[in-house]
Amino acid sequence: MASQYIVEGDNPDLSQERRKATFRVDSLSELLYGVEHLKSRRMIAKLVDTTPELHDTFPTTFMSREEKVENAARKIVALMKYLPSINSFKFEDIFYYQSLVMHVDGHPLSLHGVMFVPLLMQQTDEEQRQKWLPRAIKGEIIGTYAQTELGHGTNVRQLETTATYDADNEQFIVNSPTVTSTKWWPGNLGKVSNYAIVVAQLYVKGNCYGPHQFIVQLRDENTHLPLPGITIGDIGPKFGINTNDNGFLRLNNVRIPRKQMLMRYSKVTQNGQYIRPIHEKLGYGGMVFVRSVMVSQQALFLAIACTVGIRYSCVRRQGEITPGSGEVKVLEYQTQQYRLFPQLARAYACWFAGKRIMTLYAELLDGLNENKTDLLPQLHALSSGLKAVVTHQVALGIEQCRMACGGHGYSNASALPELYGTAVGGCTYEGDNIVLLLQTARFLMKMAKMAIAMNMQSASVTTKYLFRDRPTKSSINQYSALDHSVLIEAFEHIACRLIFTVYNRIENLKKCGRTREEACNECSVDLCKASRAHTRLFIAQTLSNTIAEITDRNVAAVMNDVATLYLAHELVECAAGLLELSDDYFSGQQVAYLRSVVYKAMNTIRPNAVPLVDAFDINDREMNSVLGRRDGNVYENLLQWAQLSPLNKTDVITAYIKHLGPYMKQERSKI
Amino acid sequence: MASQYIVEGDNPDLSQERRKATFRVDSLSELLYGVEHLKSRRMIAKLVDTTPELHDTFPTTFMSREEKVENAARKIVALMKYLPSINSFKFEDIFYYQSLVMHVDGHPLSLHGVMFVPLLMQQTDEEQRQKWLPRAIKGEIIGTYAQTELGHGTNVRQLETTATYDADNEQFIVNSPTVTSTKWWPGNLGKVSNYAIVVAQLYVKGNCYGPHQFIVQLRDENTHLPLPGITIGDIGPKFGINTNDNGFLRLNNVRIPRKQMLMRYSKVTQNGQYIRPIHEKLGYGGMVFVRSVMVSQQALFLAIACTVGIRYSCVRRQGEITPGSGEVKVLEYQTQQYRLFPQLARAYACWFAGKRIMTLYAELLDGLNENKTDLLPQLHALSSGLKAVVTHQVALGIEQCRMACGGHGYSNASALPELYGTAVGGCTYEGDNIVLLLQTARFLMKMAKMAIAMNMQSASVTTKYLFRDRPTKSSINQYSALDHSVLIEAFEHIACRLIFTVYNRIENLKKCGRTREEACNECSVDLCKASRAHTRLFIAQTLSNTIAEITDRNVAAVMNDVATLYLAHELVECAAGLLELSDDYFSGQQVAYLRSVVYKAMNTIRPNAVPLVDAFDINDREMNSVLGRRDGNVYENLLQWAQLSPLNKTDVITAYIKHLGPYMKQERSKI
Repeated sequence: MASQYIVEGDNPDLSQERRKATFRVDSLSELLYGVEHLKSRRMIAKLVDTTPELHDTFPTTFMSREEKVENAARKIVALMKYLPSINSFKFEDIFYYQSLVMHVDGHPLSLHGVMFVPLLMQQTDEEQRQKWLPRAIKGEIIGTYAQTELGHGTNVRQLETTATYDADNEQFIVNSPTVTSTKWWPGNLGKVSNYAIVVAQLYVKGNCYGPHQFIVQLRDENTHLPLPGITIGDIGPKFGINTNDNGFLRLNNVRIPRKQMLMRYSKVTQNGQYIRPIHEKLGYGGMVFVRSVMVSQQALFLAIACTVGIRYSCVRRQGEITPGSGEVKVLEYQTQQYRLFPQLARAYACWFAGKRIMTLYAELLDGLNENKTDLLPQLHALSSGLKAVVTHQVALGIEQCRMACGGHGYSNASALPELYGTAVGGCTYEGDNIVLLLQTARFLMKMAKMAIAMNMQSASVTTKYLFRDRPTKSSINQYSALDHSVLIEAFEHIACRLIFTVYNRIENLKKCGRTREEACNECSVDLCKASRAHTRLFIAQTLSNTIAEITDRNVAAVMNDVATLYLAHELVECAAGLLELSDDYFSGQQVAYLRSVVYKAMNTIRPNAVPLVDAFDINDREMNSVLGRRDGNVYENLLQWAQLSPLNKTDVITAYIKHLGPYMKQERSKI
Repeated sequence: MASQYIVEGDNPDLSQERRKATFRVDSLSELLYGVEHLKSRRMIAKLVDTTPELHDTFPTTFMSREEKVENAARKIVALMKYLPSINSFKFEDIFYYQSLVMHVDGHPLSLHGVMFVPLLMQQTDEEQRQKWLPRAIKGEIIGTYAQTELGHGTNVRQLETTATYDADNEQFIVNSPTVTSTKWWPGNLGKVSNYAIVVAQLYVKGNCYGPHQFIVQLRDENTHLPLPGITIGDIGPKFGINTNDNGFLRLNNVRIPRKQMLMRYSKVTQNGQYIRPIHEKLGYGGMVFVRSVMVSQQALFLAIACTVGIRYSCVRRQGEITPGSGEVKVLEYQTQQYRLFPQLARAYACWFAGKRIMTLYAELLDGLNENKTDLLPQLHALSSGLKAVVTHQVALGIEQCRMACGGHGYSNASALPELYGTAVGGCTYEGDNIVLLLQTARFLMKMAKMAIAMNMQSASVTTKYLFRDRPTKSSINQYSALDHSVLIEAFEHIACRLIFTVYNRIENLKKCGRTREEACNECSVDLCKASRAHTRLFIAQTLSNTIAEITDRNVAAVMNDVATLYLAHELVECAAGLLELSDDYFSGQQVAYLRSVVYKAMNTIRPNAVPLVDAFDINDREMNSVLGRRDGNVYENLLQWAQLSPLNKTDVITAYIKHLGPYMKQERSKI
C-alpha cells in the first residue's frame, strides 16, 4: 500500500520498503495515538516546523552545557509564547509539542511542569492553592521538588533535612545539619528555579513527625541571587539530561512562614498542634501516576531507537549473501533482524502496557474519589514492576538498535548515544529498579499467602491467575495453530512457579530461625525474578488483548505477527529459568519449536519492518537523528552534519598551535 | 590481614573492610601483574603523582571538546618529555604510564602509537622502514590509519577509494570517487595527524588488485594546512572517546610517489608490474594482536567499574535489614552483591583470558617465524570470539556497577558514564561483534565436520573437546565436594551441543536445497550462540587453570571462591539454553543446586570484596572517580567536585539574564 511517507527525492531503498506495506500505516498510527490526537500531532508538527523561534540554530550536541541550557531557555520561552496556538489543554498534545521543541535532554521547566505545579494542585489547602498555583502556572515563578539528599535516596524516612516549628514567630526553620543532608539531584534546582518544595523532617515541640513538604523561596525574584542561608548550585555533568541543571542545596536555618508547609493532608496549627492525614497512603497515587507516564515515555524512546535502527538497516548495504549478487541491505541478515525485531515488538508491547496502566490509573482515581482504595496496592505493585522491567528492557533495546547501526550508531549523529543516556536514567530515578521490584514482590508474597489459603476474595484483576488451577503441561505443539492464549498461559505458569517457589523458600528459612527480614534478604534475587515474571505476564496479556480488539483486518494481521514474535521471544527468554525449577511444563521440543516461531515471525515481519516504524509517527525533528531520517538520505547529511563540529571552525586547532606543532618542529630540528 | 591500602583519615567503613582481608593484597596484585611490573607500576605512579605537568588542571569532564583536545595535546607532549624517566621499553609499563596520564577518553597520539608506527614496522620494505620509521618514532610526524569509509566498514573488499598507478610519473593517484568513499572514523585523522596510511583499491594497467596500504601526506609539515586535493575534518561528538578527533578525508586525485605504497609483501614495480605476497593471510596476525590487547584492556575497564561499585557500596548506607538496628552498607543486600560480585568474577576471568591469549599469540609469532601457521586459524577464531564476548560482557558489567551506585553512578563524578562510553565502543570497532562471532563460527563448523569425520589430526588445543567422548549426564551433586573440573566439563558439553546442533541444522537445510550461504544466514543467530559457548568455555578453562597454579595458599583460597562464583554463575546463564536442546545433561535439581552455589559463593566472597578490588591496584588518578576513591571520603569530595561545574561560575547564568528572567518579570507585571 502506498504510504504518505514516500516523497520524491527519498532514498529509493526506503521507498521500496514502504511500497511493500501490507497495511495502511495511518490506521496503525491511529491505533497507537487515537484518531484525534494523531490529527493534533500533525497540526502541532506543522506549527513547530513553520515557527523558526522554536528551532535549534544548530545541533545541540555540538554545544557546551552552558550553551545548551541557554538555548533551551530561549526555546522554552518561545514554547510558552506559542502554546496558545496549539489550542489544546490535553496532556498528550502539550507533551508532544514539548517533545518536538525540547527533545530528550531536559529543559529549564522540566521539574516545574512535572512536579512543582502538580504538587501545588494536589498537596495544598484551598488558601495555599489560591496563593501559589496561578503564579506557578503563569510562570511568574519557577519551582522544583527537592527530596533526595547527598547521602539519602530511596529510604525517605532517613532524610536529614529538618523543619522545626517556631510557634512564637509562626515559622518553620528549615536546616541542613550535615554534609550528607545537602539536597542533591533535584532537576532545575541548581540555576533556574527560584522556589522549591523541600522535603524535611517535621519537628513540632520536640517531636519528629517524619518527612513533610515545604515551599521554600531560594532566590530573589528580582535579582535571582540566592537568598540568605541558601547555598545552591549545579551538580555537574551526567550520563544524560545535561540540559537540566540538576542541583544541590544547603539550608542554613532558613525561616519560612507556617503557611508554606503543604497542608492538604497533614497540618500544623498556629499554636503548634500537629494534625495527621486521614489516609496515610494517599501519597502513593502520585507515584503510580509518574511511573505510569514513564512507561509510555520509555516505550517512545525504544520506538525512536527502532525507527533509527530499522530505517538505517534498509539504507546501509554491506556484504553479499549470494556471492557475486551485490551487497544487500543489512536488514536481510538474520542476525540483524534478531537485533532489531524483538526490540520493535517490545516497543509495541510496552506502548500498550503504558496505555493500559494509565487506564487503570484513571479507574483508581475514580475509586479514590468514592473512597475506594482496593485498586491502590495492586496498582502500586504493578506500576513499580512495570517501571523497573520496561526501563531496563528499553535501555538494553536502545543499545541493541545503536550497535545494529555499526560505527555510525556510535556517533551522536545517530542521536542514539544521547537517547540511551536519557532513557537509562529511568532505571535509577523515581525509585531504583531493584528496590521497586522488591516492593512488587512484597505485594506478590501477600497474594501468594492468600492464594495458598484459598482466600479468593483477595484475587484481584492483576493477580487472579495465582488463585486458579492451571495445566501442569503446556499444550503448545507444532502441529496445531499457535493460539496466543496458550502462550499467555505459559507466562502465567512461569510467574506462578517463581512466585510460589520463592514464597516457600522464605517460609522454610523462617522455620529455620531467620527473621522475616533476613529470609527476604536471602531470597531477594529470586524475589526480583518473581516480580519480573509477574510484570512480563501483564505486558504479554495486555498486548494480546489489544491485538484481539483491532478491527482493521490488515492492521490486525501485521500486529498479530508482531505479537507472535513478542510472545514467543519473551517466553524463550523466560522459559530458561524453568530448567532450574525442575519443571516439566515445557519439553525441550516445545521450546525449540517456540524458537523456530521467533525466526519465522521475523521473516513474516521483514517486509513490513519500515512501515511498522513509520507508524510510530516520529517526526524527524523529534528524532533528531541523521541515520533515521524519513527520507533515508543518510550519507550526504552525515557529511554536512560533521562540518558543524566546533573542532572544524579552523583548519588548524589551538592544540596544534600551542603544543603538537612546536613539539614536532623541535623533533625535526634535532639532528 | 592489614593492608597497605589503609591510611589515616580514610573512611572507617572502608578500613573496616580492608582489615577483614584473608589474604595479602599485594600477593594477588603480583599474580595479576607480575612482580616486576607491579614494582614499575608503583614507580611510574609516583613519577606521575609528583610531576604536575602530567596532571589535568581541573577535571576534563567539565571541559568542552576543544578544551579536552588541547589539554590532551599539552599532556601528551609532557608525557613524551618524561618518557625517559620511566626507564623502560616494556609495552605494559608504557601502557600504564599512558593510562595514568591520558585516562580512557583517547588522545592525539592514540592511532599513531597503536596503528601508524606498528604498520611502518611490519608492512614496509627495508628502504621504506629506514625512511619513515625514525621520523614517526621521534614524533617529527604524526600519522594514523585510514581504512573505513562513510559507506563501507566490515566488508573491506568493497572499499571505494582507488590508488591508480601512473607509470609515466612513477606515482599513484589516490582518489575518493563518491560521497560514500569518504574516509570516515579513523582516529586522530580530523585535526591532529599530518600523515595517514590510507587503504585503497590498487589499480595497475586497468586491473584491480584489491585493497592495499599507501602513505599519504595530509597536511603541510610547517603550516599544518591541508595539502591540495585533501578535504579533511573532525566527524563530531560521539558516545565516548571524545578527546580523539576521529576524522573524515576526501582525496581528489592526490598524487603520491610509487614508494609510498607499503611494499613488504605486495609490490608494484617501476614499470607497473604487480607482485603478489607469498602468504595471503599473514595480515591476520595483526588483527589477532589488536583483539588480544583489547581483551586485557576491557578486563581493566571492568576492574575499574568493580572497584568503584564495590568500594562505594561499603561507604553508602541505606535502609535497615533488621528494623531499628541502623542503616547498613548497601553491600549487605543480596541483590547488591548479585549486581557486583559476578562482575568482579568476570573481571578476573577476562583478565586471565587476556593474559592467556597474549601467550598464545607469542607462540603463534614464534611459529610464524618458522613458517608454521597451524595456530593461526584457531587463534584468529578464538581472538574474534573473545573480543566479541568480552566487550559485550564488560559493557553490560560496567552498567551493572554504575546502576549499583544509584543516582551518584549517573553523575560523571562516578567516572562510569565515560568509562561505559569508551568500553562499549569496543563492541563495534576492530570488527563488529556479530561479524566476529560468525567468523569464529565458520571455524567451528569446519572443526565440527572434522570431528564428525573423526579426523583427529584436526583437533587443536582450543577445540580438542569436540573430538572426545563426553558424559551425557553431569555428575554435579550437592552431596560431594564441588570440583571445578565437573563444571568445566559442563561448559564443554554446552559448547559441543550448540556447535553440533547448528552444524546439523545447516546440513539439513542444504539437503533441502538451500545454498551454503543461505543456510548459514538462516542459522546465523544459532551460529553466534555456538561461538559464544566456545569462547566462554575458553575463559572458564583458563580461569580454572590459572587458579590451580597459584602457590600462595591464602590467595588460592580466595581466588577459588571467585572461580566457583564465576563458573557456577556462567553455567546457570548458559544452561538455560539447554532446555531448548531437549538435553538431559542437567537435571532441574542440579541447576537449582548451582544457583545455591552462586548465592553461597557471594556470602563467602563478601568479607574479601574490597581487598579483591584493591588487588587490581587501580590508582585514584587512573580511576578518576569520586565514588571509587581509595580513601572512601566520597560525600565531601562530591560536594567539592560539583563546585567546579562551569554552570557555577556565576550565581546568575545567562540563560536567566537573557530569557527566563525577562519572561518571569513580564508575567509578574501582567494584571
